[in-house]
This record gives sequence, C-alpha cells and structure tokens, in this order.
Amino acid sequence: MAIPYPHFIASEKAAMEAGLLLAPSSPSQPSVILTQDDLKKIAAYKAVEYVESGMVLGLGTGSTAKHAVARIGELLQQGKLKDIIGIPTSKMTHEQALSVGIPLSDLDSHPVVDLAIDGADEVDPYLNLVKGRGGSLLREKMVEGACKKFVVIVDESKLVNFIGGSGLAMPVEVIQFCWKYTASKLQKLFEDSGCVAKLRTFGEKEEPFVTDNGNYIIDLYFKESFGDLKAASDAILNLAGVVEHGMFLDMATTVIIAGELGLTVKNK
Amino acid sequence: MAIPYPHFIASEKAAMEAGLLLAPSSPSQPSVILTQDDLKKIAAYKAVEYVESGMVLGLGTGSTAKHAVARIGELLQQGKLKDIIGIPTSKMTHEQALSVGIPLSDLDSHPVVDLAIDGADEVDPYLNLVKGRGGSLLREKMVEGACKKFVVIVDESKLVNFIGGSGLAMPVEVIQFCWKYTASKLQKLFEDSGCVAKLRTFGEKEEPFVTDNGNYIIDLYFKESFGDLKAASDAILNLAGVVEHGMFLDMATTVIIAGELGLTVKNK
Repeated sequence: MAIPYPHFIASEKAAMEAGLLLAPSSPSQPSVILTQDDLKKIAAYKAVEYVESGMVLGLGTGSTAKHAVARIGELLQQGKLKDIIGIPTSKMTHEQALSVGIPLSDLDSHPVVDLAIDGADEVDPYLNLVKGRGGSLLREKMVEGACKKFVVIVDESKLVNFIGGSGLAMPVEVIQFCWKYTASKLQKLFEDSGCVAKLRTFGEKEEPFVTDNGNYIIDLYFKESFGDLKAASDAILNLAGVVEHGMFLDMATTVIIAGELGLTVKNK
Repeated sequence: MAIPYPHFIASEKAAMEAGLLLAPSSPSQPSVILTQDDLKKIAAYKAVEYVESGMVLGLGTGSTAKHAVARIGELLQQGKLKDIIGIPTSKMTHEQALSVGIPLSDLDSHPVVDLAIDGADEVDPYLNLVKGRGGSLLREKMVEGACKKFVVIVDESKLVNFIGGSGLAMPVEVIQFCWKYTASKLQKLFEDSGCVAKLRTFGEKEEPFVTDNGNYIIDLYFKESFGDLKAASDAILNLAGVVEHGMFLDMATTVIIAGELGLTVKNK
C-alpha cells in the first residue's frame, strides 16, 4: 500500500528532515515536485528510523545508500543515536562513513550485524533484488548476508516484474584470468533468455572496471525472464571463473519504495 | 586392475623412458625400488602417451604434472610431437612450459581444450578429486573444465575412500576481505564432520599464501566424510566470500595410478 506524502506523518516528517518540506502540508497546499534523488533521500531517511543506539550496522553503497550513511552520521552528531558500529560494504562507503563520524569495524570483528540499509538496482514482487551496478556486490552480499534485518531503499523506478526485467545490467564479478572465456560461458548459460554479456568498462579509453577485490565485472543483459532464480544462481556460481553475482535472493526483510505518490513499505 | 611393472610392456616402456629402467626386465631380475617421485614420473609419462600432434593441451601444476610438461617438451624437441598448443594452469607452469619450448595460449583464444593432464591430491573411488594443495585450483578448474578429456596422474598414496579422507587439506579459495568471517562460515558448514578451517600461510613469518588471482586459501580438514559432494559444493559456492573450492567432481575422464605393484588405469 502506498502512503501518499501529504497525508502521512512519518513520511512527511522524513521529507521535512530531508529538507524537502519546510512545514507540514495541508490539503490546500500544492504538491511538492520531487526529483529521483529526493525520492531516494526520503526512502533513506525512512530506513534510518529502524536504527537504534547500540546497533552494528551494515552500510550500503551507492546513490541511495549514501543518504542513509549521511543521515546516521547526522543523528550521531546530534546525540540522537549513540554506540553505533558501522560495517561498510565498499571502500567508498568506508570513506564517507569516516567523514561523517561513524565508528567502523568489519565482519571479522563483528560477524553478526543487527541491520543493514542499502539500495538496489531491481526489486521483484517477491523482494528478490539485483544489486551491484555500483560494483560492490560482493562485499554487500557478505555484509547483508550476515544481517538479522536487511532494509532495502529504492525509488519506484527500481520495481520490476521479473529479475533482469529492467533491461539494465545484472552484474557478475569474475576473476581477470580468461574473463572472455567466462563471459562467453555466462552468455551461453542464458542464451534462451536472449542474454548478452559485456565487460564493464569506464572512461574514454574503456578500460576494464576493477572491483575492490581486484576482479572484473561482466554485465548480463536479458531480453526475457530466465525463470528459476535459485537454479540460475547455482549455475552461475558453478562456473569456475565466477566470484559472485548480483542476485540477492531471499535476503531483503523490508523494502521501502519512494514514489511520486508516497512511501510504500513491504515486509517479507 | 593393477598392471605390475615387470610384466607389462607399456609401463615398462614408460619406466625406461623415464630413465628408471635401463633394459626390459625378466622374471629373474630383482625388482626396482621406486621412490614416490619415480611413481609420479611413470604416471606422467604414461599420460603423455595420450597426447597427439595438433592438440590443444591443458598443462597442470604441481610435482606430478611437471614431469608431464617436461616430457611434452622433450617429445616436441625430438620431433615426435608437433603443433601442440599448451594452456598453462598457473604462472609456475607457464614458466616451465616456456622453458621447455611448448607454445602457449589461453582459454580466451582457445576455449576448447582437447586434453588436460594434471595431478591430484585425492582421488575417490568414483574418480572425484581434491586438487589445489599447490594453490592453483581455480585456474586448473577453469582449464580442466574446458577439456574433452582430463587425464589425472597420481601415485597410489592419493587414493582415498572418501573426499577429505586423507586428513590433509581440502582448499577453498576466498577473497581477502573478511577472510576470517568466511573461514568461520566454512567451518560451521561442516561442523558435523569435525571440520577445522585454517588460513594457508607460508614462510617463517607465517604470512598468508596469496593465489595467482590475489586471493587467500582456507584449508579445510575433516575428521569424517561429509556425504553428498554436490550438495557440499553448492553450499560452499553459495558463501559470498568464496571464489572456488578444490573438489573436482565428475571431471576426470581417466585416472592413471602408479604404485609399487604397477600402473592402474581407470576410465570414467
């Protein structure tokens, strides 16, 4: 159920705290026009309401998660939260979290994480996710797999009918050694779904993108659904050159979706 | 069926070519005392009989495989083999193959490999293997998984009743990030089999051993069989920090075993 912004206290409070509303709305006020980044921020602020003092927190990576990290830092500085330990899911988030004053640790020292907050690239109707367009899928999967609760924050553009349904990349992290061979094996695995496998590159020279773990990313693009997600996951992981893939199956416990018409919270 | 050395032409020929016998034996001659390295060499030379000119060859890594690589180089120099392309499974084998004059390529250029020859650390009665005590399991698995035929060469000390049954390491390649966490997850996965997980180290300072792919190795030691190998494989690969494991299930097409009593050839 979508909760429309002008009439719901919690989201309105979130929007105000996010600096998007100056005062509570009334039915006579015109609607606020929200950008995609505004929606991300609203979802992120809502997710941070789940954070309690004393928690070990998984800190996600990307354009949505960064709003959550910033907000947690803000609440620590204001004294509204205390005794938080953050477990960052990338070098980038590590830097951001340090810069906003969140004390950090890792899974080796804190193998049980109370709550993780992160964005996603796709969310299907069963709360399965695609993640990793930002390139941090592996560390995200380790940290978020260690969580008691995993709150996913997205704007409504991330909702899909089936995994791969956005037509955008489903990333697979592979070792550099013979990556072309691994890419062709991946493409072949999903040839019935019209799969195209491409090495992720960056910059004008199109150099290979290298993950925090020193690996490459092969982006898979699908024309059609490939059906059984668990079977697909096992088949991908069984290829020897594959390190990890971007499907997060049965991991999210809550998904917060910010759309033009309001916030929707889905629980597993 | 074991073929005793003194009465079997092929193995005798192999032993002679390996420099271990000077002339064909007769029943009146005393037995030759063979070291473990002699046995490895005999198995390796026997395996090289499967090589034909024009083949793309997967070149294994380790103390047994190095005899096969040396032998292939010798036959190339003698003109008994030609047009061989080698696909090395490690940087070490790459160096050795170059030094003995084997032209090299990789899976990206030659995605189909005619034959691979490699050693193994354990061979079970169904020709499932444990490999990777030399640390090259990942590249070995990629190359040997691309082969039409995979000939495994071992001395008889490598035969086990069940995978893990030697009491020696079953290696798992993991990313460096939070390796302790991954090690504890691996140990927990097999706690019913009395599993102990240890980071592989080297040298007096016990520094972590780093694979050709920049990863660590967690060695698993088992007290008992862990049963269903395919289920164990899937469970290991499903841990996010795991890159690959050293079980080579249903991959070997032929296993050549050299023992004190002769050569045994098992086919799948």
